[in-house]
Amino acid sequence: MNSLHFTAESSSDGMLERDFTVGDVPGVLWSPASDATDRAPLVLMGHGGGAHKKHPAMVGRAQRLVTGCGYRVAVIDAPGHGDRPRTAQDEQEIAELRKAQAAGEPEGPIVVRYNARLAELAVPEWQATLDALQELPEIGADGPVGYVGIAMGTALGVPLVAAEPRITAAVFGLMWPDALFEKAKQITVPIEFGLQWDDELIPREAGLALFDAFASKEKTLHANAGKHFEWPRFEADSATRFLARHLGQAVTSSA
Amino acid sequence: MNSLHFTAESSSDGMLERDFTVGDVPGVLWSPASDATDRAPLVLMGHGGGAHKKHPAMVGRAQRLVTGCGYRVAVIDAPGHGDRPRTAQDEQEIAELRKAQAAGEPEGPIVVRYNARLAELAVPEWQATLDALQELPEIGADGPVGYVGIAMGTALGVPLVAAEPRITAAVFGLMWPDALFEKAKQITVPIEFGLQWDDELIPREAGLALFDAFASKEKTLHANAGKHFEWPRFEADSATRFLARHLGQAVTSSA
Repeated sequence: MNSLHFTAESSSDGMLERDFTVGDVPGVLWSPASDATDRAPLVLMGHGGGAHKKHPAMVGRAQRLVTGCGYRVAVIDAPGHGDRPRTAQDEQEIAELRKAQAAGEPEGPIVVRYNARLAELAVPEWQATLDALQELPEIGADGPVGYVGIAMGTALGVPLVAAEPRITAAVFGLMWPDALFEKAKQITVPIEFGLQWDDELIPREAGLALFDAFASKEKTLHANAGKHFEWPRFEADSATRFLARHLGQAVTSSA
Repeated sequence: MNSLHFTAESSSDGMLERDFTVGDVPGVLWSPASDATDRAPLVLMGHGGGAHKKHPAMVGRAQRLVTGCGYRVAVIDAPGHGDRPRTAQDEQEIAELRKAQAAGEPEGPIVVRYNARLAELAVPEWQATLDALQELPEIGADGPVGYVGIAMGTALGVPLVAAEPRITAAVFGLMWPDALFEKAKQITVPIEFGLQWDDELIPREAGLALFDAFASKEKTLHANAGKHFEWPRFEADSATRFLARHLGQAVTSSA
């Protein structure tokens, strides 16, 4: 088992930010600056395609979870993203995607295939990262674990949550269902799922079909008027409340 | 114009509850017990079929809006409901509804027809009530007004919001669309709309079609796994946050 090595540390806006590696995979762990050693629920976050572990969307969500709920939040760079090298196959997929976008052709088939390949790599990386994070005394092996990932974060996260019984609540959305149906049918933990009602990339029926596929007894669809990239910011607050409902509050030493 | 007459007053759990009449229509106005005279946004709530203005669902939602947001909340008894007499036609519709329910036959056609008739009466009653409420110094003619009504509260509320430019945000859900499509297409204010993904009474496609019909640029669908009567309680909190986002905070004298 690869253990976790911290490689850098800084603080801002009430969050302690620690870069780490687990094997070759670089990640970041955010904790409350005032309370980084007490046990608290852990949220794993998957970043979007073309983004990375410290993308502003990740930092913004982490801020809500860390300073709002006292949680710990970890993100790792997906294969070929952030500080990780791209393979020739990554470069080729990305070139095909850019070509399709430039030509106004559907990008769904390329994204689905590319992300499905990344998911095969990312699931064991996430599991090794979770093993290593749970070795930290401030997280521990028996605390609640949630997952949040939209778009590529869903493409990698649905197979992860299907494979990983330690994750007990998840937030997904904005992804073609094609490669995910079978994994979604294996998921029974509570989920919150988002889609854009006027998504010009992912057909409405495709998004509804993916939501329908989850076997979860408790699942909520949030569909907002607007196009793919008009995903409203208040959904990040909703995701935080969803996780707080299912993971519970942080356990602090004074409690 | 009928003015508003207060007929009873009591306080509990931080809420001042005042019964009132506007003409023949009985209603209730809830305000913060500590702050009943300052101006604040007003929320009109429509109760469900067979219920009344002080049904526990109304009191619970009012509690969130009044003590949580400092709002004023008003509910009136729908025609044939609560303290209002039933006509022979009401009795006949209700008998048909009970018969269909007992026989396991679809109740949609009866509810749609019955509620459409009630809406014709209820819309002018609500408008007269709003006129009278806005005469109160603590509400005033220029403050924000929202509407919340699920099930029959939607059947009566969609025509109301379509007709009433003073209402600038609304929460709807759980109703057959048949009598409401044309009115929904006239509504452009922000809405939050709820349906049950496994509703055994209202077909999923019918609920999605009604959500789709609203012309609102900002609209959010919340679909939860579960049957018609399994509507989750956390949606009442979500509705409160939605209204707070659009109506703004109460204006208190100390602000």
